[in-house]
Amino acid sequence: MSSDQRLEAKASGPVVALCGGVGAARFLRGLVRVLPPEQIVAIVNTGDDREFYGVHVSPDVDIVAYTLAGLVNTEVGYGLSGDTFQLIETLAALGHETWFRLGDRDFAHCLDRTLRLRAGEGLAQITNDLRKKLGLGLRILPMAETPCPTMVRLEDGRTMHFEEYMIREGAPDGVAAVELNHAAQAKPAPGVIEAIHSARTILFCPSNPVVSVGPILSVPGIREAVAQRRGRAVAVSPIVEGAPIKGPARQLLRGVGIEVSARGVAQHYRTHRLPSEASRNANATEPVALIDGFVIDEKDRAQASDIEGFGLEVAVTDSIMTDAEASERLARVALELASRNPS
Amino acid sequence: MSSDQRLEAKASGPVVALCGGVGAARFLRGLVRVLPPEQIVAIVNTGDDREFYGVHVSPDVDIVAYTLAGLVNTEVGYGLSGDTFQLIETLAALGHETWFRLGDRDFAHCLDRTLRLRAGEGLAQITNDLRKKLGLGLRILPMAETPCPTMVRLEDGRTMHFEEYMIREGAPDGVAAVELNHAAQAKPAPGVIEAIHSARTILFCPSNPVVSVGPILSVPGIREAVAQRRGRAVAVSPIVEGAPIKGPARQLLRGVGIEVSARGVAQHYRTHRLPSEASRNANATEPVALIDGFVIDEKDRAQASDIEGFGLEVAVTDSIMTDAEASERLARVALELASRNPS
Repeated sequence: MSSDQRLEAKASGPVVALCGGVGAARFLRGLVRVLPPEQIVAIVNTGDDREFYGVHVSPDVDIVAYTLAGLVNTEVGYGLSGDTFQLIETLAALGHETWFRLGDRDFAHCLDRTLRLRAGEGLAQITNDLRKKLGLGLRILPMAETPCPTMVRLEDGRTMHFEEYMIREGAPDGVAAVELNHAAQAKPAPGVIEAIHSARTILFCPSNPVVSVGPILSVPGIREAVAQRRGRAVAVSPIVEGAPIKGPARQLLRGVGIEVSARGVAQHYRTHRLPSEASRNANATEPVALIDGFVIDEKDRAQASDIEGFGLEVAVTDSIMTDAEASERLARVALELASRNPS
Repeated sequence: MSSDQRLEAKASGPVVALCGGVGAARFLRGLVRVLPPEQIVAIVNTGDDREFYGVHVSPDVDIVAYTLAGLVNTEVGYGLSGDTFQLIETLAALGHETWFRLGDRDFAHCLDRTLRLRAGEGLAQITNDLRKKLGLGLRILPMAETPCPTMVRLEDGRTMHFEEYMIREGAPDGVAAVELNHAAQAKPAPGVIEAIHSARTILFCPSNPVVSVGPILSVPGIREAVAQRRGRAVAVSPIVEGAPIKGPARQLLRGVGIEVSARGVAQHYRTHRLPSEASRNANATEPVALIDGFVIDEKDRAQASDIEGFGLEVAVTDSIMTDAEASERLARVALELASRNPS
């Protein structure tokens, strides 16, 4: 019996993945090689969503969908391979701010979403249709259907949308807090809670715990559903050797008081506090254990015993997803950790 | 003293041109070679305007602006030269109706207009900014700022937007009426009435009298201002040898009972009835003389005496605008006819 068959034999209910953008997409790229895609539900952060140039942009949803469809611009990890930029360059010539680059075909996808939202369709239905049109077998669910902008408050007093912080400002230091008030007042999108309740395994993708997984967990009901999981939950560390593989995790983790290390992220998920109160000066609330296992990189092997000390199973592997085969190996390690008998 | 100097010496007030799309744009391309552009005001039909793919498209305004800026796709007479079609082709792939082709850069212009309209700016201001950005010296005024969709009623009972009739349906026969109710309830855009009142000359471009100039004249106040002109008004025939140079004039003129000939158009403007009542079965209203002179093509020379019989001065010339020089010659003929002493 192959490893795959064993994994499938245990199958009952989907494997649910909590997802941000690039890191999650690369992890899922491996997961769909290990499991039948139909058994996977990706619940994706929409805290990065914003209207740009009149269209509804869903960065993380689109990164996941484009990556899995093999359409992504692999150089940067987002956008469409070979896309052109006529529209945005013309807007720039007409005097518009264009710090958020959006290709012509990418824009068309966002426009399709916008026109359908305006016609009264829900984001979950639109996203589901998108993944079908792209020929994807896994389900992709936005965490919520209403706007949940993640806001970053800086020590200089400015508060701005995450994309403004990230792209326009270039992710500077001096983050005072990440505000998830909108997510904290949203409802989970149709299917999200059902998927988590029925999940045989919950995977936390190697995504930013503050601005990618954080918004998902702050939508009322999702964190509770994860806490009450019937199967096991495993997170893959987005931090290797004290630095994120991609993105502004250092500034953001520091800003909310999480140690910028695999150990820091493990502890964060193991003793999770409501993200809306996760600012540096917040009062502690009762922590909840959201994960049972944690996957770290070989380079962080020295932290394994500390993480086991939090009461977590630990797997150590090469976690850098240089290609689809590396993604597959990482996904397999995470799934095997989830199916390991508790020690 | 050159011909140009003579024309300028007489100058007092602008030359106002009533404009549709391609024919008007080609005529203006000549006019700006004869007169300083600053002395020209183009009042442009917005009856073709429609929202496509979430953006406000102003076909005639854009044809005029793109042509004068030297940016137009000269093969078809509209759109931008060398434009790409990534956006529309992606929308098509996502299942949208895309019978109205809009290039990526063209779309950006329409998106700019849309975003500014949404921010509360007026169409006249937006159009004026566009022509400045394109480096155009002449003023371009939309006829009105509110939506004035020209609707075409067919004998089979269907009523549709002009662009649907023209592009989607391919301009079929069987036009029962052209409905300009929206224009008839609009207000002229800021500057339109003032321009006509101060005009030393009014030129009717070689545009469709029913769906291009007709909507302009049906905006309350415009027809009256033309009727009370202080200078002379001259129209250039859009019909040569019983056929339009471009566009669906045959079907539309027939549909509203105008003879499809230079003579028919001359008579229409000379004894103008309100376009909203210009359907085949409408009751006649008191006609108004909107023009003093009419320019026809050499090939229609035989109609000159009939047209003179309507009480119009006639100039006969080669009216086919194959290039800018031809446009210039035609513009010069029209201006000279307007400055001729009444016989």
